[in-house]
Amino acid sequence: MSIDRLKAKIARHYGTPALVIDLDVVERNIARAQSLCDEAGIAIRPHIKTHKSPVIAAMQRDAGARGITCQKLGEAEVMAEGGLDDILITYNILGEEKLGRLGKLLSHATVTVAADNPTTIEGLPKAAAIAGRPLNVVVECDSGRKRAGVETPEEAIRLAQSIDAAPGLSFAGFVFYPPDKTVESSQSFLDQTVAGVRALGLEPRILSSGGTPNLRTLQSFAGITEHRAGTYVFNDRMMMAQGMVDLEDCALHVFATVVSRAAPERGILDSGSKTLTADTGAGLDGFGLIREYPQARIAGFSEEHGMLDLSRSNDRPPVGTVVRIVPNHVCVVVNMFDRYIMVRGTDLLGDLPIPARGKIA
Amino acid sequence: MSIDRLKAKIARHYGTPALVIDLDVVERNIARAQSLCDEAGIAIRPHIKTHKSPVIAAMQRDAGARGITCQKLGEAEVMAEGGLDDILITYNILGEEKLGRLGKLLSHATVTVAADNPTTIEGLPKAAAIAGRPLNVVVECDSGRKRAGVETPEEAIRLAQSIDAAPGLSFAGFVFYPPDKTVESSQSFLDQTVAGVRALGLEPRILSSGGTPNLRTLQSFAGITEHRAGTYVFNDRMMMAQGMVDLEDCALHVFATVVSRAAPERGILDSGSKTLTADTGAGLDGFGLIREYPQARIAGFSEEHGMLDLSRSNDRPPVGTVVRIVPNHVCVVVNMFDRYIMVRGTDLLGDLPIPARGKIA
Repeated sequence: MSIDRLKAKIARHYGTPALVIDLDVVERNIARAQSLCDEAGIAIRPHIKTHKSPVIAAMQRDAGARGITCQKLGEAEVMAEGGLDDILITYNILGEEKLGRLGKLLSHATVTVAADNPTTIEGLPKAAAIAGRPLNVVVECDSGRKRAGVETPEEAIRLAQSIDAAPGLSFAGFVFYPPDKTVESSQSFLDQTVAGVRALGLEPRILSSGGTPNLRTLQSFAGITEHRAGTYVFNDRMMMAQGMVDLEDCALHVFATVVSRAAPERGILDSGSKTLTADTGAGLDGFGLIREYPQARIAGFSEEHGMLDLSRSNDRPPVGTVVRIVPNHVCVVVNMFDRYIMVRGTDLLGDLPIPARGKIA
Repeated sequence: MSIDRLKAKIARHYGTPALVIDLDVVERNIARAQSLCDEAGIAIRPHIKTHKSPVIAAMQRDAGARGITCQKLGEAEVMAEGGLDDILITYNILGEEKLGRLGKLLSHATVTVAADNPTTIEGLPKAAAIAGRPLNVVVECDSGRKRAGVETPEEAIRLAQSIDAAPGLSFAGFVFYPPDKTVESSQSFLDQTVAGVRALGLEPRILSSGGTPNLRTLQSFAGITEHRAGTYVFNDRMMMAQGMVDLEDCALHVFATVVSRAAPERGILDSGSKTLTADTGAGLDGFGLIREYPQARIAGFSEEHGMLDLSRSNDRPPVGTVVRIVPNHVCVVVNMFDRYIMVRGTDLLGDLPIPARGKIA
């Protein structure tokens, strides 16, 4: 089938906007990340926040991944329900409602959670008590990104001790989310922290780094046992802008229709901020790359309108044209859809639900 | 119940992030907009894109609204399913898949759709044929906003003629989305267009303007028969910044928990771009107003992390604190949740699903 026939078929069967993934490219991306980690002697623990599908998580597992990473408890629940196990939740889980759910999850899956403060560690034994088995806890460390995570090795060591001392908790190691460009400060943080806990008789089983861009610098962060990455499974315009991948490595496109062409230099796509999101992809120009009209700029949004600036584009799509868009940031766009349309090249396979979509709690 | 007890109860029963609406404020907002329209002698046709709930749409109808407005066909299907009728879809509906669905919808609901180009008008008779009854079509006109909509009265008149000539279509009038600040160009556009179609023997039953900010300038756009507005039902930080409303008019809050406080001047909320969205609300500072800590700035996001800058805040929330956030742009935030938590003042009522969430097609 030609690409034009595929577009027509998807528009006819499913309508647009449609979230289309090419499983050939997905499999290639999974294999490449797996082999980068294999070469570095580090396990990969894919972050499912990108795809939110137990089916795709199982593809990553079957390719050799060690468990999975989730950001929110609700994502982990969906993954366990879908048959995944060995789940790392890199988030501070707090409050009675979540601790009850965590206890239930722990009773039928192997779960590790992160903590970066004493309040979190105080609450976690409740989950272990509900499950009647120990809960693995890693300490989240900041290394320059200033997100979650303790800022000094001393704090990290102190929290490791608290975890070890808490009833029902098992100290499991440390997670880092190092900055994209350098791992120097992360290395010194890691070394001091590991030496500190070993001096106390504690052994960190997990030393985890993260980020798709860091897949190319795995070997420079010495001592790491596993790596969390999400975006690599699909890739996006942000990864292309960082020189990580080429267009042919982008497994996901939003298929959209031009619904209005009120003037020669502008048009409207049926995909606005409720589809492509207002995520700029760390400051990219425009809100996505249109494969068929690379000079056309997605200049702005209403909720259901994508504003096309065609002033730099010689070739201009008439109303009714279906186009393929590489999103700026694929993880947030997947979260706007309830299903994937799966293809291989130009062959249409069918659709796949996205059950962890919207699991923000 | 005190607000602190309400927050504790919601966190305990539902967890955070939670989307909380105060029905007292919702009812007040609905009544105020209805009476502004009543005073102007104009019908209100609420835009359900903001709340995406047939239950809230029915509250608007019962308060006196004339039908509802939807942006996408999928929203209209959910509303019809929920018992709403007289539905205006202000969108160009294109392609076999959507025309089939539109025909089915039209067979059991009164539907009006918009068109701004001949390709759309060519397709619409298919829907009318499926339903076996006429489809009402309005012409969408641009009046300075450069979104969808024809740019000249001549084009608008030409499209009205095409609609009138097409089998199964009934010309119903014109929709405008005038700029916030001035209606001058809109007025001249409207006057010329109406005179033009009347000269051809066509009567525009619907002359529709739109926008919550324009609720205060209803009387200055002469000849309008109805007004579409959505945001007013909840209001948000953007409406506050435009001087439209006060804090007490904001019916919706995201309840969020502080999950990390790794340094004195920063913290992390459990609500990131997958909850509050990257929508800046037309350039507001920060991504939401925290009621309890108005000096705290939601400075940026990861997908599940809201970065709190506390440098200007004397009062700083410890880990575990539940806060109430007024979002920048309420319409896109509602779309990230599957349910509302309903309250009246500090009384907890229960939850309400959001069935049109994610209906982007």
